[in-house]
Amino acid sequence: MAFQYLTNASLDDARKEYFETLKNGNFGASSETVPVQQANGRITKHPVYANICAPHYLASAMDGIALQAKVTFGAGETTPVILTQDQFTVVDTGDPIPAGCDAVVMVEDVIYQEDGTVKLFEAATPWQHVRQIGEDICAGEMILSTNMKITPASIGAMLAGGVMEVEVLKRPVVGIIPTGDEIVPPTADPKEGDIIEFNSSIFSAMLNEWGADAVTYDIVPDKYDLIKAAVLKALDECDMVVLNAGSSAGREDYSAEVIKDIGNVLYHGIAIKPGKPAILGYLGSKPILGVPGYPVSGILVLESFYKPLIDLWYNRQEKGNKVCKAALTKTVVSGLKYREFIRVRLGMVGGRLMASPLNRGAGVVTSFMKADGILEVPQGVEGYDAGAEVDVKILKAEEELSNTLVAIGSHDPLLDEVMDMLHIRYPDMYMSSSHVGSMGGIMAVKRGETHIAGTHLLDEADGTYNYSYIRKYFPEGKVHLVECVYRTQGLMITPGNPKNIQKITDLTNEGVNYVNRQKGSGTRILIDYLCKQNNIDPRQISGYDREEFTHTSVAAQIAMGTADCGMGIYSAAKLYDLDFVPICLEQYDLLISDSAWETPMVKALLEILKSDEFRSRLEALGGYELKNPGTERKF
Amino acid sequence: MAFQYLTNASLDDARKEYFETLKNGNFGASSETVPVQQANGRITKHPVYANICAPHYLASAMDGIALQAKVTFGAGETTPVILTQDQFTVVDTGDPIPAGCDAVVMVEDVIYQEDGTVKLFEAATPWQHVRQIGEDICAGEMILSTNMKITPASIGAMLAGGVMEVEVLKRPVVGIIPTGDEIVPPTADPKEGDIIEFNSSIFSAMLNEWGADAVTYDIVPDKYDLIKAAVLKALDECDMVVLNAGSSAGREDYSAEVIKDIGNVLYHGIAIKPGKPAILGYLGSKPILGVPGYPVSGILVLESFYKPLIDLWYNRQEKGNKVCKAALTKTVVSGLKYREFIRVRLGMVGGRLMASPLNRGAGVVTSFMKADGILEVPQGVEGYDAGAEVDVKILKAEEELSNTLVAIGSHDPLLDEVMDMLHIRYPDMYMSSSHVGSMGGIMAVKRGETHIAGTHLLDEADGTYNYSYIRKYFPEGKVHLVECVYRTQGLMITPGNPKNIQKITDLTNEGVNYVNRQKGSGTRILIDYLCKQNNIDPRQISGYDREEFTHTSVAAQIAMGTADCGMGIYSAAKLYDLDFVPICLEQYDLLISDSAWETPMVKALLEILKSDEFRSRLEALGGYELKNPGTERKF
Repeated sequence: MAFQYLTNASLDDARKEYFETLKNGNFGASSETVPVQQANGRITKHPVYANICAPHYLASAMDGIALQAKVTFGAGETTPVILTQDQFTVVDTGDPIPAGCDAVVMVEDVIYQEDGTVKLFEAATPWQHVRQIGEDICAGEMILSTNMKITPASIGAMLAGGVMEVEVLKRPVVGIIPTGDEIVPPTADPKEGDIIEFNSSIFSAMLNEWGADAVTYDIVPDKYDLIKAAVLKALDECDMVVLNAGSSAGREDYSAEVIKDIGNVLYHGIAIKPGKPAILGYLGSKPILGVPGYPVSGILVLESFYKPLIDLWYNRQEKGNKVCKAALTKTVVSGLKYREFIRVRLGMVGGRLMASPLNRGAGVVTSFMKADGILEVPQGVEGYDAGAEVDVKILKAEEELSNTLVAIGSHDPLLDEVMDMLHIRYPDMYMSSSHVGSMGGIMAVKRGETHIAGTHLLDEADGTYNYSYIRKYFPEGKVHLVECVYRTQGLMITPGNPKNIQKITDLTNEGVNYVNRQKGSGTRILIDYLCKQNNIDPRQISGYDREEFTHTSVAAQIAMGTADCGMGIYSAAKLYDLDFVPICLEQYDLLISDSAWETPMVKALLEILKSDEFRSRLEALGGYELKNPGTERKF
Repeated sequence: MAFQYLTNASLDDARKEYFETLKNGNFGASSETVPVQQANGRITKHPVYANICAPHYLASAMDGIALQAKVTFGAGETTPVILTQDQFTVVDTGDPIPAGCDAVVMVEDVIYQEDGTVKLFEAATPWQHVRQIGEDICAGEMILSTNMKITPASIGAMLAGGVMEVEVLKRPVVGIIPTGDEIVPPTADPKEGDIIEFNSSIFSAMLNEWGADAVTYDIVPDKYDLIKAAVLKALDECDMVVLNAGSSAGREDYSAEVIKDIGNVLYHGIAIKPGKPAILGYLGSKPILGVPGYPVSGILVLESFYKPLIDLWYNRQEKGNKVCKAALTKTVVSGLKYREFIRVRLGMVGGRLMASPLNRGAGVVTSFMKADGILEVPQGVEGYDAGAEVDVKILKAEEELSNTLVAIGSHDPLLDEVMDMLHIRYPDMYMSSSHVGSMGGIMAVKRGETHIAGTHLLDEADGTYNYSYIRKYFPEGKVHLVECVYRTQGLMITPGNPKNIQKITDLTNEGVNYVNRQKGSGTRILIDYLCKQNNIDPRQISGYDREEFTHTSVAAQIAMGTADCGMGIYSAAKLYDLDFVPICLEQYDLLISDSAWETPMVKALLEILKSDEFRSRLEALGGYELKNPGTERKF
């Protein structure tokens, strides 16, 4: 097989060829012998046969007396039989039946007499209350067949059958080699330019869940010889190798070269997004997978190749995740050249499953954490329109999706506190929130994509919040507006306020860099209004086009010194110890769709808003004023 | 709460009261702090907030050059912009953006010139290809809320957010105390009367699967003071205690007394079968569960109390197993006083789910291993008729049930070999077989309860096998008879044949103890016929009424010396090194229902019967003659 540099092979073809190649190299599980007690969840290598019978002797199934049944024949209510001491033996449950005996009479049916004899009013039938040898298992019987998962009950059956050790499939050992000059081990205090190496921790946990043991090697700098030495060591010690980062075709990307040098590269470049620069390498039966450095790309490549490869190792047929129909909430555009995997949030709203695409950045690991499902856009398809019905691979239990309160709208950290309280109080309920701004939230409610939406939209005409927007977008009503909080909006400023920003008009000062919120957010509408009120042309404000999606991310930019000032709520400024110039107290409400209004989740939400705990949590965040949270507004 | 000796409390009421009592004692998880990398699958104790932003600096998202966007303004296809070396910096993906820069131009779009300047044909927009600080996670943001399960992706998110350790719920430690004078640790060589202690191994594995750590203490003899000391030690070291065996009210059953002495007994005796003598004890917040000695009873009690109690520990709402409708294949009679849990085999036959009750003996651990489902018979219900539609709790995936070949009929060890081969060749296929004899198999096919049935029914009139029975029971045809094997039936005899048994008529000799097969089995029909042929009245044969259900269990009785002789196949005699007097070569066929005939499972079965491996496996078993296995018989 010729080395193909940055190919664009289709995932299915490449995988098939890769697996065939490895199978020809005799890829598959070896076995090891383990004590039966430690074998739970392991897979049998061979059939397991019983060594002894269980029970291994004729045993009494009751407390009572053992005897020969025929000595009781003729006993009846009026014709009791008297047995002398040499005709019976007292037995407890589990005791052996003495030689010559073939039945047990329960203690309740035995009348002990003073002279040591016993009286019986009923005849025994042969073998009554006797556990026959092998009642449970006979020696030589197959207890488990090949390739079966060992369960707690089968551990018991093996031990009962005298099987003390069992040959099971070895768990594959996967060696993970992180590479890169900028890469540093996880730390809470990274320097600028340090890239925290958390991929191997994610990969280890994933591999463990698939039935493999992961070994993570030390980070290897971008030096050809060092990488080569690391791969050789891993090949020696492991069954499978992951070479992380260095899989694209950039300046210091040696992975493909090293693998080609040591073994073979079947493909370099797979037509998937993210994950394209994957390298399918191997030496004999040992796969060496080159995985891109961005975490989301790496996760996807590992899932695409090593998950099914571990199934192959165990010769097991794993059923994939369930695929369901869902309605897309946003248009998705995809490249024709790739099969793209898009992570989505799912919500069951008004009986429809709605799929909202998450951030597609390959570096955004939280998008994988938050994903409820994966939408695949096949190669050759340009994408899907908003509202389209698409197939989505479900990553969570359907019950969990049905019990998830969906919030799409304006961002406020209080939503996370509500999420936390909801799941503590109702362990079967969950909440997911997406930040698209107040206008985005209103539209999401209108389109039936969300149960609730945080909103704080100022009407410039009369200074009210939300009411006029709701009248406009919901002329027929059929929504509910619930009071949540009043919160302080203002200017968040570099600590110490070195550029002396005191009011809106200071934003146009020379050398002041502003960072803004996205269009459609309530905060953007507020700053636009304030500019108008102060006769400022926004183009005079440096950085007005730089858009962030949450109060927190605006605050983060200021705290890290990449901007001087931004509009946001007090709690975000407090979180980052920023200076703060209060501008106004605004009304932050929750808009709730009619179809969700009577659900247990919304009832739980209102209960939480009314609780003392909600008040005290918001006090800790700071900058909130609470009047009657959780009550419906009439307007 | 007064001590209630051998009560008959309803399961639901007792459990509710028990849990309330423990909650009042402050039962629930404490927490511990673990490194994030080791936290996969653990449950958060508190919300987890990010300590740092990810990325924590403005980072290049591409390989290329970093610059100030405004220096490129005006660039176009015909109006390139030339930048001098002080106007840009070469950056790789992940590199920090130098101070003053706000955009990155991809390397593909940069024309390097010989004098060190670069030429650009397109203007950059501010912040293009720049990963903003906190693009993934902002410091202070909630990464995970309380009581959430940590996943591989959330490990990555925590590490990216500078979180190195996480407080998680402690796994409860459950101390298991096995008691009993007859109890011995698992061994392959037990003495008569030894009861192998495998319960604690089953319990440990179950508890592990539920999220607990199990500690098994040494076996404690039936001595009050020793048991008390063991319980006190376990209470000191563990969060929950299991006291195994000694929970009934027999002579040496000290459990309840000991628990009462140390703490409290809420109930002793629950209206469930098996499992009635359970003891619900506690000390403060620590439960002490007295569990009956029979494994099936013990498993059921542990599942009924400690599984939900561990859910309560974690404050999680576990969804139970799915309940499906199934048709009962046998009448089930149950006591009115108990809620009975009956283990069933399930088979999807002709589109109907069929439930066959397994051995209800509390000592039969294999019935738990083989169980596909649990049928509950409520207190106050006498049972269900054969054919009744009942609710069954499903223990296996529905796909697995749909892909399981069901065999109900005559027993032969070759069926286990076929099962083994089937799952190796087709990892998504399974097989389950139940032994009810040839006549039972024919009736099971007729009633639509099985896909296939092993059968070897002799027609006394003409010496043929099976044909006349099938004509009689399936007058309209619509079944298929497939040739399987010819096998040697004969007399299995104690090694060395001390009682000199050479022919059928020797069975009536003084001192010869016979062990028989159950009525309706092909082997019983054969011995009945042989008796008639030899003018023997079966009542003359000692032990003719002692019935076993398989060839192997008959052989086991002879091998263990509880009988001298029994009728069976050569392979069973060989397994136990018994003497063997061959009597005849009989035809063992497989009857296959019409609805199963075209299924992939039956096709796979026929392929296996025709295979060389089947031949060689049967050669190893011995006593079989193969002609054209796997071909349909025309008669």
